[in-house]
Amino acid sequence: MAREEIKIFGPATVSNVGPGFDLLGFALEAPGDEMIIRRNGTDKLVLINKTESKLPLDPEKNVAAVAATSMLHKLGSCEGFDLIFISKIPPGSGVGSSAASCAVAVMGINELMGAPFDIADLVPFAMEGEKVASGSTHADNIAPALLGGITLIRSYDPLDIKHLPYPDDLWCTVVHPRLEILTGESRKLIPQMIPLQTALKQCGNLAGLVAGLTTGDYPLISRSVNDVFAEPYRTTQLPDFDQLKESALEAGSMGTGLSGSGPSVFSLCRGEEMAASVGQVKKEHFSSRGIESWVYVSRISEAGCKII
Amino acid sequence: MAREEIKIFGPATVSNVGPGFDLLGFALEAPGDEMIIRRNGTDKLVLINKTESKLPLDPEKNVAAVAATSMLHKLGSCEGFDLIFISKIPPGSGVGSSAASCAVAVMGINELMGAPFDIADLVPFAMEGEKVASGSTHADNIAPALLGGITLIRSYDPLDIKHLPYPDDLWCTVVHPRLEILTGESRKLIPQMIPLQTALKQCGNLAGLVAGLTTGDYPLISRSVNDVFAEPYRTTQLPDFDQLKESALEAGSMGTGLSGSGPSVFSLCRGEEMAASVGQVKKEHFSSRGIESWVYVSRISEAGCKII
Repeated sequence: MAREEIKIFGPATVSNVGPGFDLLGFALEAPGDEMIIRRNGTDKLVLINKTESKLPLDPEKNVAAVAATSMLHKLGSCEGFDLIFISKIPPGSGVGSSAASCAVAVMGINELMGAPFDIADLVPFAMEGEKVASGSTHADNIAPALLGGITLIRSYDPLDIKHLPYPDDLWCTVVHPRLEILTGESRKLIPQMIPLQTALKQCGNLAGLVAGLTTGDYPLISRSVNDVFAEPYRTTQLPDFDQLKESALEAGSMGTGLSGSGPSVFSLCRGEEMAASVGQVKKEHFSSRGIESWVYVSRISEAGCKII
Repeated sequence: MAREEIKIFGPATVSNVGPGFDLLGFALEAPGDEMIIRRNGTDKLVLINKTESKLPLDPEKNVAAVAATSMLHKLGSCEGFDLIFISKIPPGSGVGSSAASCAVAVMGINELMGAPFDIADLVPFAMEGEKVASGSTHADNIAPALLGGITLIRSYDPLDIKHLPYPDDLWCTVVHPRLEILTGESRKLIPQMIPLQTALKQCGNLAGLVAGLTTGDYPLISRSVNDVFAEPYRTTQLPDFDQLKESALEAGSMGTGLSGSGPSVFSLCRGEEMAASVGQVKKEHFSSRGIESWVYVSRISEAGCKII
């Protein structure tokens, strides 16, 4: 007999990893979204919010419902489901809140329907939801939210995702300051025409970062975490961002950058202890400027969405 | 007693490897330059050409002499040397003819002087010579010519070179058609402002190529060998270039592109047999259009310049 209900965890993710603007992302062990999905015997998606976050409950405006609808449409299915939000990554934090919602919705419904799709094939449906949040179709949060680990989007057309190997002791600290930056607005700040020399800098750094990750070359990783496409235009609202990067580097991090479109700031670190102390340094940076912040310390997680 | 004379081999190299415009290059086992370098007891560099290629013999215009002068200047040395060109990669072929000359000159003089520099530290001197040939300072031929293997220029400022691992059975075929393209002229064709979306395509492909090489993922290598920065502007003089790429792909190659600024065309291949047959297909492409060509089939070479 087919399962009627399922509970799914979807991890927070860091996207736009340094020079990997729109292309590189990774999954964290925590925080994450939790969602219960159950058949409701109708032909509608019903959104139920049991979290403290404010979420749109109109299925045409809720990213998870848009993603789910896209998948159901592809299957030619008219089944209805309740999507019950149990726990939610704070929206607008820059750690893939919308991607996690989209990922858990498509993963859960896919499971309830007997897994007609491989998990990798769910990415395009989840991207449809992400599009509602950011105004553009990108997959660098969606791919690691579904697949786990560090994912490279080699190409969007056709979609081509590579799961990258990386060193075992690669940890990350994300500090989320209480500042609001909306992804859609933030994208508009980025120039759409750029000098070839700027593009070559980004290419070199991204290639260096990928080479550093796949060969376990920490110094190379450290030298490569630098984004010249988006970060210079997105960090104007973060006080003394260059100083923050410098402090995190001095504290031993392997490079610091905006997580997604911010305001969260990630730092790659070697080991948990280093990640914790770098997190503390970044928290102090914000608190000394009167800004409250939350610190997440996590190993890069091989797990994407999972049934709990 | 110090050595008075040395004979050096410097390999041909493929640069601008697919999406690695200005950043990625590799060394071939053959062809290559051979040069004898000997102290001449004066304070001058004397150029002696024993090859069939036409080479400038004015030390201010000869790339090898400019590179050597740059190194000697750094050392504060007034020693003179004869640079005797014994064998020469045809200039203007696109397989790093000038880079090989620069590399053998600085490598040889460095050896004769008791190796004051590590080989990696010779790159900037050789680049000074390369600048005379192309009008711009790039290192993606120089680095593999000196160091061997596949090299990524992560950054030019500061210069940061990573030697990449790659699969053992990676071979290359280069076909050199009798067509003349000069690097300096060819660079002027490339737009200096580009759409962000074009840059992201290149970033994705270069990251994919590096990931494919370092993890031995041949299908990913094959999907990633595509240059959107330079190739579309440089292949107008090569008849039916798209068809050539397609034929090489059908014959089993892992991707085809311009070698350097052309006119040579490289194809990455798995194993010698495949490389030989792809070379034949490309030769026929040109011969059926009335263009003579030379085929080189070589394993990617771990050796850079070496004493012979």
